[in-house]
Amino acid sequence: MLDTEFIDALASKAPTPGGGGASAYVGALASALASMVGNLTVGKKKYADVEERVQSELLELEATRLRLLELVQADADAFAPLAAAYGMARSTDEEAAAQKAALQAALVDACEVPLEIMRQCVQVVESCVFLAKHGSVMAVSDAGAGAVLAKAALLAASLNVRINIGSMDDATRAAIYRDEMEDLIVAGSALADDVYDSVVRRLS
Amino acid sequence: MLDTEFIDALASKAPTPGGGGASAYVGALASALASMVGNLTVGKKKYADVEERVQSELLELEATRLRLLELVQADADAFAPLAAAYGMARSTDEEAAAQKAALQAALVDACEVPLEIMRQCVQVVESCVFLAKHGSVMAVSDAGAGAVLAKAALLAASLNVRINIGSMDDATRAAIYRDEMEDLIVAGSALADDVYDSVVRRLS
Repeated sequence: MLDTEFIDALASKAPTPGGGGASAYVGALASALASMVGNLTVGKKKYADVEERVQSELLELEATRLRLLELVQADADAFAPLAAAYGMARSTDEEAAAQKAALQAALVDACEVPLEIMRQCVQVVESCVFLAKHGSVMAVSDAGAGAVLAKAALLAASLNVRINIGSMDDATRAAIYRDEMEDLIVAGSALADDVYDSVVRRLS
Repeated sequence: MLDTEFIDALASKAPTPGGGGASAYVGALASALASMVGNLTVGKKKYADVEERVQSELLELEATRLRLLELVQADADAFAPLAAAYGMARSTDEEAAAQKAALQAALVDACEVPLEIMRQCVQVVESCVFLAKHGSVMAVSDAGAGAVLAKAALLAASLNVRINIGSMDDATRAAIYRDEMEDLIVAGSALADDVYDSVVRRLS
């Protein structure tokens, strides 16, 4: 039986877990799928040439998976102060200044966490590129599925970066975040699309 | 704490859960995210005009989520006879005929399950189209994330349809499956891309 506690919490009207937590969770699933491909490849004579590289991909994928699972919680932790700041009183100049400071501080974490989810997802896509090409041919569709799911997690997380840079007063910081977000989308999407297309060709 | 039993099983070299099960699971996560958007919309004065429709979307999304979670198991159940058939002896003509019959029978379920995952994912995308447009504006990024994740689950599941129709002797049946698979990809992808693009525009 599947444990549906996370899925049930996601469906509820509680704001966390939300899109950020779901992105991190899907990134972890994609990373796990890539690990399966690696685990079906290692120790096989046919793939002895790539044994060492696959072993190192497996170590990296395990670290990525654990990091993405931590980021599910980090995303919820970053939302609490943000929600609190949006709810602060703004009746006096002092209150307005305090609210603004709290909001701007909270927005930094609320951008950093989904950006970190995105970075981890690009790593998963990169592993899938290698595993789709050199991993067990029996699991090539799983490497393709891993790439597709990691790309989606990347795009879904980017929406949270977009929202939060939209409210940021520090234009320099916002521009740095936007540039990194856009670079990660471009890099990860193109690689993932290539993996998917190559897998479709091999299955046709 | 997150329960990681499914993710750990996915990462292992056991062939199930694999890409099919992961697709169904991600479809369920996407459906849950769309439910959150609905749950943040109902009962609010601002959205009274769409209350009834959102209530019916919520019922449908709950059914879809439960169905997708069942399909995680159905995918594993469909794989067992397929793996058994691939492993059957083929030394004599009788054995070869029995192996062929068992394989062809197993391939039907191994196509039907991912096709059903795909149908459910298109339903999730359709709900996200409505919710991104008419649901709580506070959760518009979550509706966008739901659409992106459901599309990825759709594409990932399609890879399992592709593999299995490739081994099917019944060309008529294979063509029917291929046509439905391609129609679902086209319909679901275009809708999901529209939702994502519209959410990106609204957040910019």
